[in-house]
Amino acid sequence: MTRPRITLLTDFGTHDGFVGAVKAVLATLAPELAVDDVAHDIPRGDVRAAARALARYWLRYPAGTIHMIVVDPGVGTARRGLACAAAGRLLVAPDNGVLTPVLRSAPNRSCVQIEEAGLAGPVSPTFHGRDVFAPAAAALAGGRHWSTLGPPITDPVLLPEPQPVREGRGGRGEVVGVDRFGNVTTNLPGSWAWEGAVIEVAGQRLTVRRSYGEAGPGEPLALIDSEGWIELAVRDGSASALFDLVEGMPVRLPPS
Amino acid sequence: MTRPRITLLTDFGTHDGFVGAVKAVLATLAPELAVDDVAHDIPRGDVRAAARALARYWLRYPAGTIHMIVVDPGVGTARRGLACAAAGRLLVAPDNGVLTPVLRSAPNRSCVQIEEAGLAGPVSPTFHGRDVFAPAAAALAGGRHWSTLGPPITDPVLLPEPQPVREGRGGRGEVVGVDRFGNVTTNLPGSWAWEGAVIEVAGQRLTVRRSYGEAGPGEPLALIDSEGWIELAVRDGSASALFDLVEGMPVRLPPS
Amino acid sequence: MTRPRITLLTDFGTHDGFVGAVKAVLATLAPELAVDDVAHDIPRGDVRAAARALARYWLRYPAGTIHMIVVDPGVGTARRGLACAAAGRLLVAPDNGVLTPVLRSAPNRSCVQIEEAGLAGPVSPTFHGRDVFAPAAAALAGGRHWSTLGPPITDPVLLPEPQPVREGRGGRGEVVGVDRFGNVTTNLPGSWAWEGAVIEVAGQRLTVRRSYGEAGPGEPLALIDSEGWIELAVRDGSASALFDLVEGMPVRLPPS
Repeated sequence: MTRPRITLLTDFGTHDGFVGAVKAVLATLAPELAVDDVAHDIPRGDVRAAARALARYWLRYPAGTIHMIVVDPGVGTARRGLACAAAGRLLVAPDNGVLTPVLRSAPNRSCVQIEEAGLAGPVSPTFHGRDVFAPAAAALAGGRHWSTLGPPITDPVLLPEPQPVREGRGGRGEVVGVDRFGNVTTNLPGSWAWEGAVIEVAGQRLTVRRSYGEAGPGEPLALIDSEGWIELAVRDGSASALFDLVEGMPVRLPPS
Repeated sequence: MTRPRITLLTDFGTHDGFVGAVKAVLATLAPELAVDDVAHDIPRGDVRAAARALARYWLRYPAGTIHMIVVDPGVGTARRGLACAAAGRLLVAPDNGVLTPVLRSAPNRSCVQIEEAGLAGPVSPTFHGRDVFAPAAAALAGGRHWSTLGPPITDPVLLPEPQPVREGRGGRGEVVGVDRFGNVTTNLPGSWAWEGAVIEVAGQRLTVRRSYGEAGPGEPLALIDSEGWIELAVRDGSASALFDLVEGMPVRLPPS
Repeated sequence: MTRPRITLLTDFGTHDGFVGAVKAVLATLAPELAVDDVAHDIPRGDVRAAARALARYWLRYPAGTIHMIVVDPGVGTARRGLACAAAGRLLVAPDNGVLTPVLRSAPNRSCVQIEEAGLAGPVSPTFHGRDVFAPAAAALAGGRHWSTLGPPITDPVLLPEPQPVREGRGGRGEVVGVDRFGNVTTNLPGSWAWEGAVIEVAGQRLTVRRSYGEAGPGEPLALIDSEGWIELAVRDGSASALFDLVEGMPVRLPPS
């Protein structure tokens, strides 16, 4: 049988011992667990960035995988801790919207609120990654059913997801994220674009191309990213910096 | 039986191939070893930062775990290499004080000086992580007893650990570390604080709260960190930058 | 039997979900594969830096190891994808020169061009790490022979490797790389140097020492790095910044 597997997505960084403390709990409570580091450098407390990252991989892992996400600016307050099942994958995370891409897209998903009293050991008010989410994940790895971790929740926090609007064969949307390279993700579906289509943003007009390599060095372009959304980029550069693009700015695909 | 496990804490960064060279040695000499990356971005040569990181996880791992720490500004000089046993955990590291939190706190701990001649292969004067500590760790993983790696050492290097002083029900201490977020660790024990206590530092007065979330955005606060020490922070900000706090600055918990 | 092992070297960073997407494919197609993260912070698109990193570890891993390298500025263009065997190790990477240290040094090496049609799933024009190289690596881990992944290639891209020139018992060479600490690698072999030799660069004269620790704090020095090349450094500082050293600048080891 394949070993159970957990993925870790956090904003802990790799400058100190926080990742070690979480892995120590997993090694103690679930020594056979395979641990995949996804990323520990999510910008501090940036729940939206963590949600966008999660969207790239959670469903690509096999059923049974446990995804642990700890970007948790509300740690120690009344915010709840979640254990969810969706499409056969399991997730533990704070209830702050970070699971939005999972909870909006999976047809069958259910969550419970993790009861701290049911876990091993005391709970620090500042480090639930170590004291709540890691023990909960280890319990899941050991065979405990997710639904027994606490009472059901029917109203998990969801981030707003602005919807694009069709205009003939074109449409309007907005910037929804900027990655560390300055590439800009929009909420315009790639399926709306066509060969030679143009994206208007911040007074610029960017032609939709197939890949970064089709633009010349330093040239702006649009393309369809690996998740199927229209992305704005500058070859070997930063579209965000060049055009001052930030989340929420309008983008438009003119019909012709 | 559970596989042996090693943790890695280094200042090698993840911009080049040094981590790969160390893991290559482990994969060659101890292929069944489970490897936990703790952190590779300890500030270059910062032995105190590495020691603070180590304190967060070494004892939380199960007995038998091998901890390898390579923050080694003295590589190639006369500084010794250590293999130690403490509370059932094994450690390999340069003898530069990085093991201070282990050696000061564990009641039973013993060290030997790693003899390079007893290890496989030649030893570069600039990369003992690859040529000394990884082979030593692999030998431990393979069942070799730590005490056979070299002659006993009774005087390992220890970093000074400034002690706080009681003043009535309050006390005086100092700043002992700043993390990458600008959170400031002190040597005042959390057990000295009480609800509504105030910490004085750099002419400021910070109220002790239970969690970051109890402060307003941008508001300074004090709290008890996940290791039990009083920490100074700014919600969504940097206490270190806001108040110009650095290691060694005095902090005070007034008795009333 | 030992589990198959893969190493990952990329410029994806650890700020988002790209590493997770690659590992998800590996976990799905080759769940028993041991995954070693080498580095994900290669400077974006810096093929030369990735090649230098690869040189540090590829041959130190045991025969049978699969090395996956994805620094791929030409993704989506006509550049080919490579699967190679060299000295018993297997490599998958874009054909952009990143495998130069392997292909120049290994006496027996052969490559094929990965045929996308033979892999599982659709291929995005912007993310071949996930859609081409990870599936190819998983196939290798599952026992598929590398030579069946596509047609043979006899002209893989190689980066130019400037050769040093002997001058009596000294020689001339150049700067070939700068690491993130500002240490400067040259193409002068360490075997050409002697105790007390001097390296001339940018009007400076740096004495060859055995280790960083033999120089005083802030003092420039030369030494033989852990791969056997002459390196220029500043103890606790940056040789690159102090002397404005960049790739291609001449260095000289005077004969006396």
